Amino acid sequence: MIFYSALNEILENVKETNNKVDEKTLSQLTTMIREVDHVFVMGMGRSGLVAKAFAMRLMHLGLGVYVVGETITPAITDKDCLIAISGSGETSYIISTTETAKERGAKIVAITSYTDSPLAKKSDLVVQLKGRTKKESENNFIGRQMSGEHTTFSPLGTLFEITALIFLDSTIAQLMSDLEVTEDVLRDNHTVLE
Amino acid sequence: MIFYSALNEILENVKETNNKVDEKTLSQLTTMIREVDHVFVMGMGRSGLVAKAFAMRLMHLGLGVYVVGETITPAITDKDCLIAISGSGETSYIISTTETAKERGAKIVAITSYTDSPLAKKSDLVVQLKGRTKKESENNFIGRQMSGEHTTFSPLGTLFEITALIFLDSTIAQLMSDLEVTEDVLRDNHTVLE
Amino acid sequence: MIFYSALNEILENVKETNNKVDEKTLSQLTTMIREVDHVFVMGMGRSGLVAKAFAMRLMHLGLGVYVVGETITPAITDKDCLIAISGSGETSYIISTTETAKERGAKIVAITSYTDSPLAKKSDLVVQLKGRTKKESENNFIGRQMSGEHTTFSPLGTLFEITALIFLDSTIAQLMSDLEVTEDVLRDNHTVLE
Amino acid sequence: MIFYSALNEILENVKETNNKVDEKTLSQLTTMIREVDHVFVMGMGRSGLVAKAFAMRLMHLGLGVYVVGETITPAITDKDCLIAISGSGETSYIISTTETAKERGAKIVAITSYTDSPLAKKSDLVVQLKGRTKKESENNFIGRQMSGEHTTFSPLGTLFEITALIFLDSTIAQLMSDLEVTEDVLRDNHTVLE
Repeated sequence: MIFYSALNEILENVKETNNKVDEKTLSQLTTMIREVDHVFVMGMGRSGLVAKAFAMRLMHLGLGVYVVGETITPAITDKDCLIAISGSGETSYIISTTETAKERGAKIVAITSYTDSPLAKKSDLVVQLKGRTKKESENNFIGRQMSGEHTTFSPLGTLFEITALIFLDSTIAQLMSDLEVTEDVLRDNHTVLE
Repeated sequence: MIFYSALNEILENVKETNNKVDEKTLSQLTTMIREVDHVFVMGMGRSGLVAKAFAMRLMHLGLGVYVVGETITPAITDKDCLIAISGSGETSYIISTTETAKERGAKIVAITSYTDSPLAKKSDLVVQLKGRTKKESENNFIGRQMSGEHTTFSPLGTLFEITALIFLDSTIAQLMSDLEVTEDVLRDNHTVLE
Repeated sequence: MIFYSALNEILENVKETNNKVDEKTLSQLTTMIREVDHVFVMGMGRSGLVAKAFAMRLMHLGLGVYVVGETITPAITDKDCLIAISGSGETSYIISTTETAKERGAKIVAITSYTDSPLAKKSDLVVQLKGRTKKESENNFIGRQMSGEHTTFSPLGTLFEITALIFLDSTIAQLMSDLEVTEDVLRDNHTVLE
Repeated sequence: MIFYSALNEILENVKETNNKVDEKTLSQLTTMIREVDHVFVMGMGRSGLVAKAFAMRLMHLGLGVYVVGETITPAITDKDCLIAISGSGETSYIISTTETAKERGAKIVAITSYTDSPLAKKSDLVVQLKGRTKKESENNFIGRQMSGEHTTFSPLGTLFEITALIFLDSTIAQLMSDLEVTEDVLRDNHTVLE
């Protein structure tokens, strides 16, 4: 069944990509997250859901965090950072929001597949997570599959989004260790009102 | 046109209901909001949107506030209060959330049409805002209209929801005055990332 | 108490503004809503909450509706319309979204205070709802109040947002009448899963 | 670094768990999704984000889908199904929503770690996805790590949530193949308004 092929493709990409992230980048990221007053996260579509999943864990860790677009998100300041998640690094709303945050003195982190994208170029720190090459994504999914070519079983940004989620959850584990936060603390901070 | 009749009906209800709220209740509400660490707000459906509109202004005032169900909402504590907005005061999810908040020592405020509802009975402070009587809402909208009976032009919880929004925005004006917060402060806290 | 002054100011604005909306505009709006395949609604901040409150009632009426930014919102087509709610008519994200929708052939409706705003200029139909004049909003709220000048008790976009909500709920009453939809139908469509 | 250990732990769990899902269950799931009028999805916290990520792809496939709790979600009917995602299968709001959907004749699918949970028992189809055992999650994360015991690097529901997301994205690949939907179709349905 296609199910298992898709599963393997996803796992291969996540493994290969995340193992390529170097310790220096990781260390810069966790240091920035610990030093700022508040981490602001943002993403559009499914990347936005990944951003929220990360924000929830940062809150569980007891860190100050806001999601761009949610009700109580205040103005960003020069003591904050913005983590923007965008596979292409080209989403216009992400770019304009990043510019606003930068003008106000906030640090910018890009989580993206492209180090030469507009988003990456405006960022203080870039975490490159490979998704699919543009070429691949322009081809026809089933067409190639039927003709026996190598193809992808992960439409649109699927590979990037899952890779980003697992990258960020592994970063949470690193932060728990660095901050010596136990799981009990996370449980205590976990919302009880739902 | 029905449009203008509906408009008048809405305005009449808002005016009559909000002018009935006594100064003591208002004063207890604004005092509680100022004294707690964080205000948690909640509501389902359109009442939930009213809750969010209020939360946004509390944030603009510089007060600590969370919306139940949003990404970064932490566990509630005995230094917080929960403001629950429910016309009927009977929504089961609201009731169970209120119980959890109460068990954890949080103060409860009900914004509701019914002082004898399950929600009101569990609350430390009740703000009664009349919407429609149950009897009215059980009748057929257009049926009564066509038969010439007095009827409502505001289906379901419309009257309660609008009345609650205007009640809460008037409370914001009161808080601005009490806290001596200028509009400039609100503008500074207003999110810039959207 | 400031509470009652704020209440009166809000009610005066809603009444005056909504009574100025002419029948022709209303008729064009309700006709467009009835003729399109899907109504897309959007707004930022509290205007976005107003957009959602309207969308919920359109769904209750049995009409096809989507909220820009929610999970299941598909691509807009030339058989749809976009209703954009923005007091200033200048929000950049609203403008760029409107342009995209227009390029795809969708009809645009602006709900705004300014008929000469970028949003209004790109729209097929403009509903003008007065909020505050720019001049007023540039002044200091408490400062003027203390100095005895006439002032506003409704910070930022409050007057516009409430006026827009009541305009749209009155439009719902008009649609119920035009479509001969009874309140029972709304109740049947009302979500039961919350 | 802990980062890489966490990464491996996550990947191991996803691989082992998803490969255990049998073809019959997969086939029942994809058949049900194709046959119903609308798929309703729900989850709380991070499981809710996974539900939304899945809903977005179902929409891209051209299927009818709603997210419980979003603005335009209508009443569920006996021609729909509800897919509830809950690691523990015990979340009270999920259980009560499931009961409501069941009473209205909708089919229920549980995505959960526990086949004997209240959620699973009320479901027509159960997809079991192992997360962590309860015993493990009761222990102290860093305490065990420091004392040299085998431990987890994935706090709270992390393993379940990621496993569920990848399970559902692999199911999307299966549906694309079954429905002979090309990636171009997904791209055409992809929202353009953000």
